[in-house]
Amino acid sequence: MPDPPSRRRYERHNPGLEFDRVAFFSDAVFAIAMTLLVVGIGIPEVAESGLDEALESKRPEIVSFFLSFVVIGNYWLAHHRFFANLARVSHPLMLVNLVYLAAIAFTPFPTALAGRYTDRPVSIVMYAITLGVASGLEAVMFVIADRDDLLVRRPSRALMRYSVLAAVVPVVVFVGSIPLALLISTEVALWSWVLIFPLEYGLARRRKPPGEEELTG
Amino acid sequence: MPDPPSRRRYERHNPGLEFDRVAFFSDAVFAIAMTLLVVGIGIPEVAESGLDEALESKRPEIVSFFLSFVVIGNYWLAHHRFFANLARVSHPLMLVNLVYLAAIAFTPFPTALAGRYTDRPVSIVMYAITLGVASGLEAVMFVIADRDDLLVRRPSRALMRYSVLAAVVPVVVFVGSIPLALLISTEVALWSWVLIFPLEYGLARRRKPPGEEELTG
Amino acid sequence: MPDPPSRRRYERHNPGLEFDRVAFFSDAVFAIAMTLLVVGIGIPEVAESGLDEALESKRPEIVSFFLSFVVIGNYWLAHHRFFANLARVSHPLMLVNLVYLAAIAFTPFPTALAGRYTDRPVSIVMYAITLGVASGLEAVMFVIADRDDLLVRRPSRALMRYSVLAAVVPVVVFVGSIPLALLISTEVALWSWVLIFPLEYGLARRRKPPGEEELTG
Amino acid sequence: MPDPPSRRRYERHNPGLEFDRVAFFSDAVFAIAMTLLVVGIGIPEVAESGLDEALESKRPEIVSFFLSFVVIGNYWLAHHRFFANLARVSHPLMLVNLVYLAAIAFTPFPTALAGRYTDRPVSIVMYAITLGVASGLEAVMFVIADRDDLLVRRPSRALMRYSVLAAVVPVVVFVGSIPLALLISTEVALWSWVLIFPLEYGLARRRKPPGEEELTG
Repeated sequence: MPDPPSRRRYERHNPGLEFDRVAFFSDAVFAIAMTLLVVGIGIPEVAESGLDEALESKRPEIVSFFLSFVVIGNYWLAHHRFFANLARVSHPLMLVNLVYLAAIAFTPFPTALAGRYTDRPVSIVMYAITLGVASGLEAVMFVIADRDDLLVRRPSRALMRYSVLAAVVPVVVFVGSIPLALLISTEVALWSWVLIFPLEYGLARRRKPPGEEELTG
Repeated sequence: MPDPPSRRRYERHNPGLEFDRVAFFSDAVFAIAMTLLVVGIGIPEVAESGLDEALESKRPEIVSFFLSFVVIGNYWLAHHRFFANLARVSHPLMLVNLVYLAAIAFTPFPTALAGRYTDRPVSIVMYAITLGVASGLEAVMFVIADRDDLLVRRPSRALMRYSVLAAVVPVVVFVGSIPLALLISTEVALWSWVLIFPLEYGLARRRKPPGEEELTG
Repeated sequence: MPDPPSRRRYERHNPGLEFDRVAFFSDAVFAIAMTLLVVGIGIPEVAESGLDEALESKRPEIVSFFLSFVVIGNYWLAHHRFFANLARVSHPLMLVNLVYLAAIAFTPFPTALAGRYTDRPVSIVMYAITLGVASGLEAVMFVIADRDDLLVRRPSRALMRYSVLAAVVPVVVFVGSIPLALLISTEVALWSWVLIFPLEYGLARRRKPPGEEELTG
Repeated sequence: MPDPPSRRRYERHNPGLEFDRVAFFSDAVFAIAMTLLVVGIGIPEVAESGLDEALESKRPEIVSFFLSFVVIGNYWLAHHRFFANLARVSHPLMLVNLVYLAAIAFTPFPTALAGRYTDRPVSIVMYAITLGVASGLEAVMFVIADRDDLLVRRPSRALMRYSVLAAVVPVVVFVGSIPLALLISTEVALWSWVLIFPLEYGLARRRKPPGEEELTG
């Protein structure tokens, strides 16, 4: 006689489920943060003839949806690349990963704010702090992964230094843009973020050890 | 003496986690885009006696929820079929996949718009652009998968040509419907989308090489 | 010299990814449908002293959140049990599964409606139709799984008949409750749903072939 | 001649999919509950000059987003650690896990309430009940896992007693804080929750059997 339904058991077959959960849980947070901003746009409730103007006024929200998708998508790519280097996870890494995900999950708010109130310093400051924290925690995760011996291949000192520096560059630029936004203008602060690209490029040319893959890019 | 909790490690056992993450992350975006439109419907706040009319006025939103589910569900099926042909993913494919997912995640907005403002050209144009971009990026992903040698079986030139054409058909129909919506009527534009089905059918009959499986349908 | 980042490839190692995606994608839709109703509750905006009454008026929404969680949770358990019997999926099964998921994703709306407007027939009718469709599509999936030879173990005719009947019982009860709601009272219709339990129990006692596991419960 | 698309089948290769689904489904609920609170914050609609005050008034919602992320994140870590001890799942464990997830999914509501109405006893009581239920169900899951022989290693009686007590400590503190909130003050009730930390610490020192790993932390 077979077991009644309440006696059925489903066996574990994947000894690596705990590692996988950290990656898939992170992916879920990324996916939700990237997607749900579209709900916030909201369908305008106007007379048919007023739709074009109503949509015109929705434009900053639509733009910030796509912007947010691109920005968080880039962090997802970096997270994906970082995890590709991991052979295991430790408790401290999981903790820092959670705080990092809190910054990622929060990103839609300052993005929408900066889209709607581009001229107000407070928008730019919140955006800069959120992404600065996310990039800074990437650097912390590299250091933990190295210290706790979590990486597939132990990186050379030169590669570690380069990888941490590459994650710190956005932090420096974002933090540096805060006084620009408060004292000079939000536009100058926004444009200062473009500096991230040449700085990363120069860093890669001068500090990246040849023949080694970077931890993230 | 065992390690304290903070010393526990969870080992990776799945060497293909990076490939899996791309598929599961895409699924999460699809699932959220398909499901969260229901939140937007909102429970009407009226006197009990006014509920029937209130629900009547919610009808376009309810219809566009199911329409959006069907439309995005079809893209999910195509994405699922495409990934079944992949033996690996490359960085360019992941990038294009992200942009494709941005179009998918945005779909609920133009769908709801077209449901609520069927007579306004701007609704039809936004819908046509969003799905046109999604279908166009499918074709780009086929080309990248072929060029970067990511496919399980190298497709014949004839099959590649057919698969790209099949993905381009909706792009042509959607783009072609934009002037129809702006110059003639939104109804004609809407009906023109039905052309996708006979065109795809005719294309399959004339161009699909026999004895080969298509990359997507 | 190593490949630059854009040349990195991530290999597939899981030949069963396509099967897994169907299950995990379904889980994502279930999880979102179960969880996001909490957003709809909304924090009341009142003076501190008015909070107790404000929460009192939120009670139907809170109750319908938990009710919805329980109802959809039960469908998730049945879906989980059904998939445990599957050795493969076919295209028709994936299609019906998508339509089934549309009904699941829609459930929060009629649940909230029935919680807020318990006395209006239209609420009860929408709820009955949504869950009736979901249960009916479960029966369709059993038939497809049997016809397309997707099951781990071919079930006996008797077991198939029992499993389909067990999925059809809620359909009959829900459909039968629609005239009750429209002609007699919503309360009678609501109570008629309780019939599902003794009917399922009686069916299991009389029709379930001994020594075989059911397809779902 | 190959099968037409509708004849394609995707085979299962993972016998442990049913176990994995329970973990990944739980992760999806956790991720949604943690992330979607950000949607609720809402971009203020004010004149540019009024943004700073408008954001000031959003502060409790922003704080409760991060608080909620930390609180639910901690439950996720405990759930992750508990599942690391599981070799299989049973039907009763899946049922209790679903009810536990309902409490987790509900958490954003009392968190936001307690952030907005810190001085009202009802906020504190709802928060205490929700987290008390979640922690209590953790204890129930330990007992079921032990009773149904679901654990990788059978724990000693001493370890089981310690693990259940460690999960019950927050229940006792949360329940005990309810009369404090109603009779004395919400502030005293809030501070009483800090007792959880020294109590857990003392319990670990006095009751945790040496040389054994705890079921969760």
